[in-house]
Amino acid sequence: MSKGSQQPALMMYAASEHDSNLYYAVKFSVPDPFPYFRIAGKNIILMSDLELGRAQKQAKVDEVISYSDVQSKARASGVEKPGVADVTAYFLKSKRVRKVQVPDNFNLGLADALRKRGIGVESKPDPFFEERVYKSKEEVRMITQSLRHTEAAIHKLENLLRESKIVGKKIRHRGQWVTSELLKKVLNVSMMENNCIGSHTIVASGDQGCDPHNEGTGFVWANQSLIVDVFPRSGDSFYYADITRTFVKGKASSALKAQYEAVKAGQEKGIKMVAPGVNGREVHQAIMKDMESKGYWTEKRNGTMVGFFHGTGHGLGLDVHEPPRVNNSDHVLKKGEVVTVEPGLYYPGVGAVRIEDLLVVTPGGHQNLTVYPKKLEIG
Amino acid sequence: MSKGSQQPALMMYAASEHDSNLYYAVKFSVPDPFPYFRIAGKNIILMSDLELGRAQKQAKVDEVISYSDVQSKARASGVEKPGVADVTAYFLKSKRVRKVQVPDNFNLGLADALRKRGIGVESKPDPFFEERVYKSKEEVRMITQSLRHTEAAIHKLENLLRESKIVGKKIRHRGQWVTSELLKKVLNVSMMENNCIGSHTIVASGDQGCDPHNEGTGFVWANQSLIVDVFPRSGDSFYYADITRTFVKGKASSALKAQYEAVKAGQEKGIKMVAPGVNGREVHQAIMKDMESKGYWTEKRNGTMVGFFHGTGHGLGLDVHEPPRVNNSDHVLKKGEVVTVEPGLYYPGVGAVRIEDLLVVTPGGHQNLTVYPKKLEIG
Repeated sequence: MSKGSQQPALMMYAASEHDSNLYYAVKFSVPDPFPYFRIAGKNIILMSDLELGRAQKQAKVDEVISYSDVQSKARASGVEKPGVADVTAYFLKSKRVRKVQVPDNFNLGLADALRKRGIGVESKPDPFFEERVYKSKEEVRMITQSLRHTEAAIHKLENLLRESKIVGKKIRHRGQWVTSELLKKVLNVSMMENNCIGSHTIVASGDQGCDPHNEGTGFVWANQSLIVDVFPRSGDSFYYADITRTFVKGKASSALKAQYEAVKAGQEKGIKMVAPGVNGREVHQAIMKDMESKGYWTEKRNGTMVGFFHGTGHGLGLDVHEPPRVNNSDHVLKKGEVVTVEPGLYYPGVGAVRIEDLLVVTPGGHQNLTVYPKKLEIG
Repeated sequence: MSKGSQQPALMMYAASEHDSNLYYAVKFSVPDPFPYFRIAGKNIILMSDLELGRAQKQAKVDEVISYSDVQSKARASGVEKPGVADVTAYFLKSKRVRKVQVPDNFNLGLADALRKRGIGVESKPDPFFEERVYKSKEEVRMITQSLRHTEAAIHKLENLLRESKIVGKKIRHRGQWVTSELLKKVLNVSMMENNCIGSHTIVASGDQGCDPHNEGTGFVWANQSLIVDVFPRSGDSFYYADITRTFVKGKASSALKAQYEAVKAGQEKGIKMVAPGVNGREVHQAIMKDMESKGYWTEKRNGTMVGFFHGTGHGLGLDVHEPPRVNNSDHVLKKGEVVTVEPGLYYPGVGAVRIEDLLVVTPGGHQNLTVYPKKLEIG
């Protein structure tokens, strides 16, 4: 037959609402798990009666088959109460497929059950679909759209801080104290107005920001660093954005200012290097060395990491973190990859700084998709 | 040692932000995968340098160990570039564990890699933690909190429809046409103001609602059914809520009114039955029969399912769909289970009706956590 028949058969079993490989394959969002196959180059899904109608209209596949029909046939073939493994093994055998390649995160319970039923199951390391790493123009457009809505939300946060007054060590806005919770609400509500769903948004003041994934709670302190890291998913396109800015309401200490400038300069150095053929490790190490040359060391102090102790960046698309990574691992950047460049420096007592932009690798180098300015102090 | 040492060792590897079994075990939300073990009754996690500080403060476990420390030891033992399988296999062997029980959805790639390294990996069917099915008072409180915020959002939607005017077949509110997109925004923004994150919210008008998972797009039509199904997750507690109401702006046809009353009566019948010791299948079948007795049949017409073609309900907690199911499968309800009761009837041409409440099974029967009224027409 066609060339497709030479390729190994693929299988997935997941909820495409949560599994981006499956969503990528079918362009159809479903909250409950369903089986997907690529056999002889054809994309086939088995759908429950509940989803059948919607799948026939919306799923971008070659064939939508009724799960309950296949289940009935499996029952007729002698299986008493055919479960997912019975139904999918029956279906594969009916297509003369005896072996499937599955994603690394494939359900172990189902894999072992298929093996017991005589189907070979082999996991493929990420990326399952190599082409998912290279974004089309349309995908870059959707990511940029999510990013613009995110930048609009940060703009609102910055305006709120500008309108606020410093009262002692705290900050007051229209009769209430400014807290991480208040600012996260401003960000998340603003994004939701554009159907961008923020979760785990980070607004972390002072030393809270020195734990890079601390989401932040309680008062936002005047004259201290404020990490604002926002990464919503669009409810329309399902593509993410990701951006971090660091602010100070009031005046930063000279040590914090210098730390901010070191991160900004390191980021600029890293961004300039991003181009096809460049190893991400070199980008990461160049930023690290630039910071070290200014005395910003990465080390463990009293059991806690300080300095620049995370990777420089990560791929982004239908997942907020996806291949490639830009860190000490070995990865040569290629055209169409969308990656963050987000160095940070964290020194409890001085504060936390992280600045993150989103880039697409272009034939000539890169395009920075982020337009939000980088300015530390808000008066 | 203790009784714990008699139990099989458990292992998970996931991002607790997305994997509810892992979140349940550690009460600590992390966006990237990390290894978890229960060995001799002790909960142990290996955390990256990036998460170590936060984990030591927040994770409800017996021991937080540095992943990079274990990785260094694995390297010293002779593995050149120790990956996750090397590090976790090394760790298990250092604890004299040769076999682990893992959740059904455990990563196949990692399971096979562990097996190659001499660790037995056996998947356990859901529920992985049986106690997760039975909600504590505190969990019921958190679910109810999410539900109240959801009901407040539906209240805003109902008010908007009440303030709207019918213009021909469409609906107008403050100078704009009322669409599914507008109403979803009203719901999602209202919930986000209370840190409840709505996604895939359903606002489906007319025959769109006959595909129960169609999220709805375009105009909301006057005098037609409008399915409003809302199931946000709290960004504070991480517990979900779930509620569905069906409205008509204007006047419902007599056929649609009768269909609404049949669903409402079926739901009431089902809810009355919910109690410890009752089989969920009986609840489901009683509702089905009640509807059939009024002539509402479930069948395939022109390749599309009509009638009541989904289950009566599902468990809810840290996942929006979790065990148990209330449908044709065999499950005896028990105290502490939180389940939805959500019959529906779908007949293209007449319309779609679904009514969903959230119940907790109590020693004496059940408590209906939902307080939102059930009224079809909005004038």
